[in-house]
Amino acid sequence: MRILLTGAAGFIGSHLCDRLLAEGHEVTGLDNFVTGSRENIARLGSDPRFHLIEHDVSQHIELSDTVDAVMHFASPASPNPDSPFGYPQLPIQTLKAGALGTHNSLGVAKACGARFLLASTSEIYGDPQEHPQRESYFGHVDPVGPRSVYDEAKRFAEAMTMAYCRYHSLDTKIVRIFNTYGPRMRLDDGRVVPNFVGQAFRGEALTIYGDGTQTRSFCYVDDLVEGIYRLLLSSEHDPVNIGNPAEISILEFANRIAGMFDPTREISFFPDRRGSGDPQRRQPDITRAQTVLGWSPRVPLEEGLRRTVEYFRTKFPNK
Amino acid sequence: MRILLTGAAGFIGSHLCDRLLAEGHEVTGLDNFVTGSRENIARLGSDPRFHLIEHDVSQHIELSDTVDAVMHFASPASPNPDSPFGYPQLPIQTLKAGALGTHNSLGVAKACGARFLLASTSEIYGDPQEHPQRESYFGHVDPVGPRSVYDEAKRFAEAMTMAYCRYHSLDTKIVRIFNTYGPRMRLDDGRVVPNFVGQAFRGEALTIYGDGTQTRSFCYVDDLVEGIYRLLLSSEHDPVNIGNPAEISILEFANRIAGMFDPTREISFFPDRRGSGDPQRRQPDITRAQTVLGWSPRVPLEEGLRRTVEYFRTKFPNK
Repeated sequence: MRILLTGAAGFIGSHLCDRLLAEGHEVTGLDNFVTGSRENIARLGSDPRFHLIEHDVSQHIELSDTVDAVMHFASPASPNPDSPFGYPQLPIQTLKAGALGTHNSLGVAKACGARFLLASTSEIYGDPQEHPQRESYFGHVDPVGPRSVYDEAKRFAEAMTMAYCRYHSLDTKIVRIFNTYGPRMRLDDGRVVPNFVGQAFRGEALTIYGDGTQTRSFCYVDDLVEGIYRLLLSSEHDPVNIGNPAEISILEFANRIAGMFDPTREISFFPDRRGSGDPQRRQPDITRAQTVLGWSPRVPLEEGLRRTVEYFRTKFPNK
Repeated sequence: MRILLTGAAGFIGSHLCDRLLAEGHEVTGLDNFVTGSRENIARLGSDPRFHLIEHDVSQHIELSDTVDAVMHFASPASPNPDSPFGYPQLPIQTLKAGALGTHNSLGVAKACGARFLLASTSEIYGDPQEHPQRESYFGHVDPVGPRSVYDEAKRFAEAMTMAYCRYHSLDTKIVRIFNTYGPRMRLDDGRVVPNFVGQAFRGEALTIYGDGTQTRSFCYVDDLVEGIYRLLLSSEHDPVNIGNPAEISILEFANRIAGMFDPTREISFFPDRRGSGDPQRRQPDITRAQTVLGWSPRVPLEEGLRRTVEYFRTKFPNK
């Protein structure tokens, strides 16, 4: 297939590029490098089946060739208000990537008669009141809260995607991505995995917001990409959760990472961020992915963390 | 003030035009007449303080003059799937009016340093699980359900409006409009008031979907306009519910209207529409409007219905 992938230079986008090229597809990657990184796709420059378009997805997209699939992955995605790459620092861009970007990407898919896959998120469930979250759960999002620039943009993107499916008979798919980690996360994007790993490499105390009892479910990026690729090839139109249901408290997670460096490493606690909409628990119900896609995560946390730490070691050449 | 009003030829928009002109303001009305009606604003053609721009709000807006306020009211708004004016028949236009239209309208306000007022809706609460609905309620909306083209577009519009308030320091206001009725509703837009009144005039049985126990809270349009006007002049940025908290079952409501024509009029019951997301109850908590705006509804249902029926009589000249 010829595939247009927006957000190709992002953490997940760049792993998708690798997989799609490895499967023999031709990939046109689109990125404006606001949160994506040239380094993530540098090695693809020599691949004749990869083409890069430097472009903002919220502006009209002009392609010289037709494509068979459009995958819309462009968006800031870190909720950290202190990171320059977090969506709280890029609120209008985030809203535009979700609404105008989805509209433009769907427009390309419609014009080409291509299938369309939207990268949605577990954030559409907000601070959930049901655990684990099934796809049928409507979510618990404050439309005017500080995180709404991301959450509502993605909810809107889902609504628009379903409308193109229902009313334009477009072959659309929606993946709801839960917490994912792995190589090529930005060290400074404020998410918990690069935060902890970076602190560990720098010999600093690992920092936890709140008492550390809040839980997350971390999926290794290769597992995520496998699920997305299966969804792309499927005939499924309804949203599908992709994530790892293995729940772990942030405190236990910090201890695991500390244990890979120095088990006596200090952990510092800071006031929690629940006021900012930071959810207390989030855990995917992956029954649909198992049933419809035959997908389950395979990479154990230990192995995923080992590969991730290995990647970040290149950022700390003296360690 | 010079005011840009999108959706000026709509039911609520046209009443707002009247009020704003009566208050001495200059109004530029923008409408593409997809659901708005030329008849609603015909009498304003002779007013030198009213200017009409025939334009789709989801396309870039070019104004020759600066404005002091932008009010974004353009959108299909009837949930009826059988009406050509309902948003289920206009799904993509509805999504675009909410997202691209809000973005364009906010852009005008930002360029002019104008205040901005967004027409939001009780539909952002979805099929609510809390009664009555306070502004702090997050809502219960299916992001991929059949009504999401309207509900998620308005939730997105709220998120974007708050982002312009927070990050561009724009003076924004958000009104969440509950069920409103009055002259100039479209007879064929599928909403319950024109449905019942039209059926009554035609001598047909009034039709109820479900058993009629579902409740609504009907606000007369003059009351709504008073609340919106107060909000426009206020310094309030958070969303404010405007609606009439007097709850009435659809069956009782049908009986009231039947009683104005022929108390023995038959009522027909059809299968309910809950599968389509039609809420069982909806009732505003108007504490904030009372506190912040000193607003309460004043027009009793009997009086509002009398004026509404009087208006619709002109559509049935032989009655």
